[in-house]
Amino acid sequence: MSLTNASPSEAAMAARSASHVLATLPASARNDALTAMHAGLVAARDDILAANARDLELARAAAADGRLSQSLVSRLDLGKKGKWDEMLRGILDVRGLDDPVGRVTLRTRLDDGLNLERVTCPIGVLLIIFEARPEVIANIAALAVKSGNAAILKGGKESTESFVAISRAISAALERTRVPNAAIQLVTTRDAIPQLLAQERHIDLVIPRGSNELVRYIKGNTRIPVLGHADGLCSIYLDETADPEKAADVVVDAKTSYPAACNSLETLLVQESALSTVFPRLAAALASKGVELRCDAKSKAAALSAVGDVAGAKVVDAAEADYDTEFLALVLAVKTVADADEAVAHINEHGSHHTDAILTESSELAERFMSAVDSSGVYWNASTRFADGMRYGFGTEVGISTNKIHSRGPVGLEGLMIYKYKLRGAGHVTAVYGEGEGQRRFKHESLPLEQ
Amino acid sequence: MSLTNASPSEAAMAARSASHVLATLPASARNDALTAMHAGLVAARDDILAANARDLELARAAAADGRLSQSLVSRLDLGKKGKWDEMLRGILDVRGLDDPVGRVTLRTRLDDGLNLERVTCPIGVLLIIFEARPEVIANIAALAVKSGNAAILKGGKESTESFVAISRAISAALERTRVPNAAIQLVTTRDAIPQLLAQERHIDLVIPRGSNELVRYIKGNTRIPVLGHADGLCSIYLDETADPEKAADVVVDAKTSYPAACNSLETLLVQESALSTVFPRLAAALASKGVELRCDAKSKAAALSAVGDVAGAKVVDAAEADYDTEFLALVLAVKTVADADEAVAHINEHGSHHTDAILTESSELAERFMSAVDSSGVYWNASTRFADGMRYGFGTEVGISTNKIHSRGPVGLEGLMIYKYKLRGAGHVTAVYGEGEGQRRFKHESLPLEQ
Repeated sequence: MSLTNASPSEAAMAARSASHVLATLPASARNDALTAMHAGLVAARDDILAANARDLELARAAAADGRLSQSLVSRLDLGKKGKWDEMLRGILDVRGLDDPVGRVTLRTRLDDGLNLERVTCPIGVLLIIFEARPEVIANIAALAVKSGNAAILKGGKESTESFVAISRAISAALERTRVPNAAIQLVTTRDAIPQLLAQERHIDLVIPRGSNELVRYIKGNTRIPVLGHADGLCSIYLDETADPEKAADVVVDAKTSYPAACNSLETLLVQESALSTVFPRLAAALASKGVELRCDAKSKAAALSAVGDVAGAKVVDAAEADYDTEFLALVLAVKTVADADEAVAHINEHGSHHTDAILTESSELAERFMSAVDSSGVYWNASTRFADGMRYGFGTEVGISTNKIHSRGPVGLEGLMIYKYKLRGAGHVTAVYGEGEGQRRFKHESLPLEQ
Repeated sequence: MSLTNASPSEAAMAARSASHVLATLPASARNDALTAMHAGLVAARDDILAANARDLELARAAAADGRLSQSLVSRLDLGKKGKWDEMLRGILDVRGLDDPVGRVTLRTRLDDGLNLERVTCPIGVLLIIFEARPEVIANIAALAVKSGNAAILKGGKESTESFVAISRAISAALERTRVPNAAIQLVTTRDAIPQLLAQERHIDLVIPRGSNELVRYIKGNTRIPVLGHADGLCSIYLDETADPEKAADVVVDAKTSYPAACNSLETLLVQESALSTVFPRLAAALASKGVELRCDAKSKAAALSAVGDVAGAKVVDAAEADYDTEFLALVLAVKTVADADEAVAHINEHGSHHTDAILTESSELAERFMSAVDSSGVYWNASTRFADGMRYGFGTEVGISTNKIHSRGPVGLEGLMIYKYKLRGAGHVTAVYGEGEGQRRFKHESLPLEQ
C-alpha cells in the first residue's frame, strides 16, 4: 500500500498499471501478501491504537460541541472490545477463502484444436470511499488483494490518523511481497473525491461504504459504475393465512433488532381480512417494543383496539410520505391492502428493491410473491434482516447492492470478479467457416469445466 | 408490442409495469408468444416488404444526393437474398434456446428449515437504440420476450416505415398471448432519445446497436448502464517463435475478412527479433491483399524489403495517432517492440479491451500474454474475428461488451439476466444467531442445485 500525495489522476493511473501486475500473480503470492499484512498490523498495534486515540480525542471534542454524532465517535473507536482482533481475524478469514481468480466457467470446443474458455479475472481498479470506521481499510485491502483488484481508498477525515497508521503498516508489509506498491493506495489529498469520481478511464467500479447521503452523492456524481445502495426501504406483507406467532416474531425482529440497518423493516402491508385476526398480535408486540405505528384509517382502528393494554403505545395517522420513508428508527408505516397483488404493486412502486418478505402459510402464494416482487431478496416467513453476506454464508461482504446488473443483494468476493474469454488455436481463421458448400461448420461441443 | 405515441417517460413507466407481469410468466407462455410473433410476421410479409421498399426508395434518393451512405442503404434492404428468412428463423432459434429464467445458481441451508436460493431472473426494462437494420427489431423483440425483459425500441428514422410495419404485425400477434402489450414498445416520437436516456428510474439497461458514434453519444449521455462498445481496436503480437505460415493466415483473416467489423485487426506489434524472420511473410501477404502498412522506422525497413515483388504495395510512415486509430479499412498500424512485455503494456494502454491475440509457438508465453492482457478476448494463434456470439456458440448475440462489469465480450441471453435471492423460512428471526453462549450458529450447508 502506498500513502499517496499524488493527484487523483496520477493515483488512478498508477493503480491501473499495478492492477495489470496483480492480475497475473498466482494465488500463493496474493495469500502471502495477506499473511504479511496481518503480521505487519500485529507488529504495529501500539502505534495504530495511539493514532486512533488521537482521532478519538478530536472526535469526542467535536461530539461535545455537537459537530459530530455520538454514533460516529463510537464507530471510530478501534480500541472497543473485540474490534482490533476482529479486524485481524478478518484478514486471515479472507486469506482462507477459495481463490476467486482463474475459475473456468465455460469451456467449448469450437472446432478441432480451437478451444474457448471463459475464465474469471479481477475487474481491475476499485475505488472505495468510506466514512469513519478505520477497520474497513484493512478489510477492503484484504479483499482487493485476494481478488486481484487494485484499490484506491479514500476515507473520512475523522479517522485520518488511524488510516495513515494502518496504511503505513500495510505498506511496509507489502514491500516484501510480490504485490506492487501502487496496488493499494490511500489517498489523503483533501477534496479528492470529485476528481477520483472523474477517473472513468482508470477506475472500473466505485464501492461506497457509509451513509445513504454518501452513496446518493456518489451515484449522482460519476459515470463509473457504483456498487451499493442508497436506500433500504424493506416491506413485509401480512397475508390472512399467516401464523400469528411466527408473524409477530418476524416483524419484531425485522423492525427492532437493529432499526438503523438497511435491511430493517419500514412498511408493513396488511391484508384487510387479516386486520382483526392476525394483525392485532403483531400490533401489540410491536407497540410493547416501543415501535410507533403510522397507520391508514383501517389499520389504525385495528391497531388501537389491539394495543389497549400496552402502556405508552403510539398509534398515529400515516402521511403519504411515510410509505416512501426509510425511518431507520422505531417507527413503522402500516397500510391496508386488499390482497397480495396490491401488496406486490405497492412494493415494486414504493420499495427500494432491497429485501421484502411475505408472511403466509400458503406456499403457492409465497412462490407467486417471490416471483413478482422485483427485489434482490424475496423472503417467505423470515425476517428481512437475514439480508447480509455473513448470514448468507459468503464469509465476507463488500456491501449490499440494489443494482439490476452485475451483482445484486449481499456481494462477496464474486462481485469483485469479471471474466475473460481465452481462445487457443493453431492458426485458425474465420473465413473458412460458413453454411456454404465446402465451408467448415463449428462443432460447439461443450467440454467439462474441470480438466 | 405496442406502437406508442406516448411520451418517453410514459412509455418507460408502462414498460416497467409490463416487466413485472412478464417476469412471472412461465417459459411456455414466453415461447408461445415467439410462435405467435413468427406466424404474424409470415402472414404480414407482403405489407412489410412493401413498407421496406418505400424506406429504400427514400434512402436511395438520399444516397444519390450524398446525404446517406451506400452501406446504410444496403443494410436497410430486407428484400436482400436470405435476409427475410434469416430474420424469421432467428425467432425460432431463440425460442429453441434453453430457458434462461429461474435457474438456481446457489442453494444453501442457512439453518434447519431456512433455505437460501439464488435464482436467475430478468433484468427488467431494456432500451434498445439501433440504426438502420430493420431485422434487428424482430431479433431484439424475440430476445426480450425469451429472457422475460420488457423492451423499448427506438430505431433510426431511415427505416421508420419498415419498423412500423413489423411492429404492427408483432403487436397483433402478441395480442393473443399472455405477454402484455406494453412489454415491447416501439417509440416513434421524434427526438425521443435524450428523454429516454433520462428514464433511469424505469430503464435498467441500454443496448445500442449501431455506429461507434451512436454508442459514444449514448455512453456520454445517460446514467443508465450501457452494454456495448464504442471502439474495437484489436491488436496482434507477433513473437519470434511464431510459425510464419499460421501467422500470415491469421493476420490476413483478422485484417481483411471484414475490415469494417469491430473485431478486425488494427495494430500489429512485431518483436524486433522477428522483423527479418517471420514478419516478411506477413508483410507480403498483407500487401498482396491491398493492405496499407503504416510502420515505425524499423518495421518499415523490414516491410519494404519484403514487399518488393508485390505490385502497388503501400508501406508508409506511421504517425503516433495511428496506434490509437480504429481504421475499419484496409490499413494496418505496425510497431516494433522488444518483447511480449512491451506488447502487453502497449495493448493495455492503447487498445480498447475488446480482443487481442498473440502469435507464438511457446505455450508458456501465450498463457502469460492471455493472463496479462486486460481484454474481453485474449487469443493464442487464432484470428481476432472469432469474437462473435454465433462463433462462440451462444446461438444469438445482443452485442459485444467492453465493459468491466456484468457482461464482457460477446453477450448472449445470459447477459440479459440478473438474479434474486429467495429465502424460505418458518418464522425465522435473526436475533437468535450469534457467537455467544446459547445462541444459534448458522449451518451454511451447500445443497445440490438440482432438486
